[in-house]
Amino acid sequence: MARLLRSATWRLFPWRGYCSQKAKGELCRDFVEALKAVVGGSHVSTAAVVREQHGRDESVHRCEPPDAVVWPQNVEQVSRLAALCYRQGVPIIPFGTGTGLEGGVCAVQGGVCVNLTHMDRILELNQEDFSVVVEPGVTRKALNAHLRDSGLWFPVDPGADASLCGMAATGASGTNAVRYGTMRDNVLNLEVVLPDGRLLHTAGRGRHFRKSAAGYNLTGLFVGSEGTLGLITATTLRLHPAPEATVAATCAFPSVQAAVDSTVHILQAAVPVARIEFLDEVMMDACNRYSKLNCLVAPTLFLEFHGSQQALEEQLQRTEEIVQQNGASDFSWAKEAEERSRLWTARHNAWYAALAMRPGCKGYSTDVCVPLSRLSEIVVQTKEDLKASGLTGSAHPAAGERWGGVRADQSLGQQEARGGLGWRIVLSSGPPGSIVGHVGDGNFHCILLVNPDDAEELGRVKAFAEQLGRRALALHGTCTGEHGIGMGKRQLLREEVGAVGVETMRQLKAVLDPQGLMNPGKVL
Amino acid sequence: MARLLRSATWRLFPWRGYCSQKAKGELCRDFVEALKAVVGGSHVSTAAVVREQHGRDESVHRCEPPDAVVWPQNVEQVSRLAALCYRQGVPIIPFGTGTGLEGGVCAVQGGVCVNLTHMDRILELNQEDFSVVVEPGVTRKALNAHLRDSGLWFPVDPGADASLCGMAATGASGTNAVRYGTMRDNVLNLEVVLPDGRLLHTAGRGRHFRKSAAGYNLTGLFVGSEGTLGLITATTLRLHPAPEATVAATCAFPSVQAAVDSTVHILQAAVPVARIEFLDEVMMDACNRYSKLNCLVAPTLFLEFHGSQQALEEQLQRTEEIVQQNGASDFSWAKEAEERSRLWTARHNAWYAALAMRPGCKGYSTDVCVPLSRLSEIVVQTKEDLKASGLTGSAHPAAGERWGGVRADQSLGQQEARGGLGWRIVLSSGPPGSIVGHVGDGNFHCILLVNPDDAEELGRVKAFAEQLGRRALALHGTCTGEHGIGMGKRQLLREEVGAVGVETMRQLKAVLDPQGLMNPGKVL
Repeated sequence: MARLLRSATWRLFPWRGYCSQKAKGELCRDFVEALKAVVGGSHVSTAAVVREQHGRDESVHRCEPPDAVVWPQNVEQVSRLAALCYRQGVPIIPFGTGTGLEGGVCAVQGGVCVNLTHMDRILELNQEDFSVVVEPGVTRKALNAHLRDSGLWFPVDPGADASLCGMAATGASGTNAVRYGTMRDNVLNLEVVLPDGRLLHTAGRGRHFRKSAAGYNLTGLFVGSEGTLGLITATTLRLHPAPEATVAATCAFPSVQAAVDSTVHILQAAVPVARIEFLDEVMMDACNRYSKLNCLVAPTLFLEFHGSQQALEEQLQRTEEIVQQNGASDFSWAKEAEERSRLWTARHNAWYAALAMRPGCKGYSTDVCVPLSRLSEIVVQTKEDLKASGLTGSAHPAAGERWGGVRADQSLGQQEARGGLGWRIVLSSGPPGSIVGHVGDGNFHCILLVNPDDAEELGRVKAFAEQLGRRALALHGTCTGEHGIGMGKRQLLREEVGAVGVETMRQLKAVLDPQGLMNPGKVL
Repeated sequence: MARLLRSATWRLFPWRGYCSQKAKGELCRDFVEALKAVVGGSHVSTAAVVREQHGRDESVHRCEPPDAVVWPQNVEQVSRLAALCYRQGVPIIPFGTGTGLEGGVCAVQGGVCVNLTHMDRILELNQEDFSVVVEPGVTRKALNAHLRDSGLWFPVDPGADASLCGMAATGASGTNAVRYGTMRDNVLNLEVVLPDGRLLHTAGRGRHFRKSAAGYNLTGLFVGSEGTLGLITATTLRLHPAPEATVAATCAFPSVQAAVDSTVHILQAAVPVARIEFLDEVMMDACNRYSKLNCLVAPTLFLEFHGSQQALEEQLQRTEEIVQQNGASDFSWAKEAEERSRLWTARHNAWYAALAMRPGCKGYSTDVCVPLSRLSEIVVQTKEDLKASGLTGSAHPAAGERWGGVRADQSLGQQEARGGLGWRIVLSSGPPGSIVGHVGDGNFHCILLVNPDDAEELGRVKAFAEQLGRRALALHGTCTGEHGIGMGKRQLLREEVGAVGVETMRQLKAVLDPQGLMNPGKVL
């Protein structure tokens, strides 16, 4: 349908970038030459393999390659590219690290993919103002490496080493959001190339104040707009003082309810926890195997605390009291950097740990977020839905459904002894579905493994994800806490914000991108 | 000009709410009857005194009364009112407590003032989810009184007991923002009646999750839109755990620079200070007099810390070390609730303390906000500008410019002995201008006292405020940290966000309010 629409467009406007005499989706040679004139011949590619690489992210969404990929070197080139595409009616898809999970870079109507990774300078660090300006090629790890000796850091951490401008475009968050907020809370200003090539500074050029009440919050509008309103060419971020000391902890619970209750109690006690992450027993098992951990295979919380030595001791003590009241066992603190890093690397690799449970499969991650009071209800229900959908597996086929209390190295000694990533989980009833979540925000992910060539299984995964989305909506939640709408959740967005909400978003899109050229087929 | 435009409108459309045969701005009797049919006869007024009361806020902006005032009782009535005005082309001005400082309620094109204070229910408190839903008549003090036994509170505190929906409309913040954020950070959802009467729930009806990446951030767009995009009829707010213990403190500094440097050092040391407020010596003197304090007349910080007893002691100790390194003296903690309340009441009454320095005058408060690193520079410069403009005064005419170290009760014993609010400050060189600021955010206010009948003085005040706004812009700051653009800062907004920024805002306004009926003449 999308292709048809595009085809209709270039038939109506034969002078546009698409050529009617060529294969559908192929760009005019003149247009490709015009792209080369802007960025230089070596920074344009129409090679199939390059286009394929740029038409997919880490999700199960089918690859839809763009017609060309360009690598601008600076904002002036981005602006000229946008103006060129605008005149010619050619879609634009911004591209960062390609680590999205909702098909945000799929070129559903073809067009030009603008790969922004060559623009990778840290433009300005204002230590005393706790702010930094970065170009789109700068990733969160690169920024934090740069900040190492400054006493500051950027805490938003979605796991993948995504580009910071891409994270702004998606409205990303991750493990530290419970204390430090999401990208929505930490972006102070954006430099945006609008669809027609004009340059917008959402808070005014060069501005990096901590708060403002000056006019409409354009920064907030572009954060999370998923490349559908313009190309983000620089972002000004709020930095935070690096914590004086850090302690991580893990604890196992007899039930999901106990883990979630502990979370609510910790937040109610105003313990300023920096991270509080939930892993169900399937995920804990997968992480034990993939990352060589030795945790109990049970519903588990990973926590992290930031503060002074003295403040940490109090936070630890309070937390320990709370989790023990909720029946936690196998409580262990990790104060050494190496040990902490091992835990959090394992947590960040949860996605890959899940994928390793079924080699050759693709992963799909759900992303609902609900009010805290509804979290244990939906997680428990989701585990039952997983079973009913035949999407759950068990790493303990002998023990069946009895989790909680069996140490991974006891039951899985044999498998572990084989080492490496090559081992296979014996599945009791189909592909394993595991749960991991930023439980302090009410946000959790079901990681579903699917054989992309098995249409029936793919259908079951999609049906499960939609059912979960609707469960979240029924509990006053959202269908996406941090991954975005992308291609697959447009119907859920309509159910979430209602007809007037979607109509309002459509009006905003129509006025800012009147030709509908910016990352078409996403969000709306 | 605005009147002329309106007049042109109703001449073109004689069927509209304004009647050509009546005095300019007067509404048709039929239209007034239609208003009464919606809200009931007793909830509509066209009396001059009522209209006057609703055409002004607490600022120096000239009162522009609306043509009628209505008091809807529920959201359905608001929706019908909006639809009625939309059909008839009549402007709408939302009205809360009238405590704004930028003329936001002035009816510059006449129209209907919608006073929302009769809708004053707390609709839903979700303790475990840290959220609450309030109607527009609920003020921040009323909410916190309601929350008293819940273990939760709402921290955003602009001083005045404003309505929470009004605070959302303005993007208010105040003394706790340094730790708890502004309204932008604490509004989870808004119920908005759009100009044509349709009902929008910016995050979806009934939703109160902590984060979301679902589509464009409509909540963020309406927060701070100053009533120009729709009428806010309910707001869902994020609550915070009430602090276990609280300590306030004051300390005096030898210079503005020393006070600001202390602030930056405290933030860099990651002390989670809840409030850090600056008062210059003129304001400190005014507060001593108005609120019967006994502080040194010098540049002063008021601080507050929230946390557990143990955490507080550490915060206090670190802060004391930092301020003493910066030459602070007269350092005193206030741990008792009564003593704290006295200090913060004095801080909140700073506006009235300033007004009391020159009875009969109106106040005008500037509101710039700059990056922290530029704060002391601009405050020092501003004090010089105040002198140069003849807008500064002295409560110590004998001591001239020698501040810092003289206790108020020593030098001002005679005046204080007279008691009450009736005393007069002896002015050395014109109306006194004092400075008070949310220094942890880089936001400060110059409170200027002006005789509204003295055109020359009013002109000097306006020129000074504009100059200060431009100084802030030159230092990468904003012309308004929390009061909004209102009527007076539209030119500064253009300079702040640039032509493309203002054009983008205009596009958003045009598409959401195509007839330009929502609070016309504000922001843009």
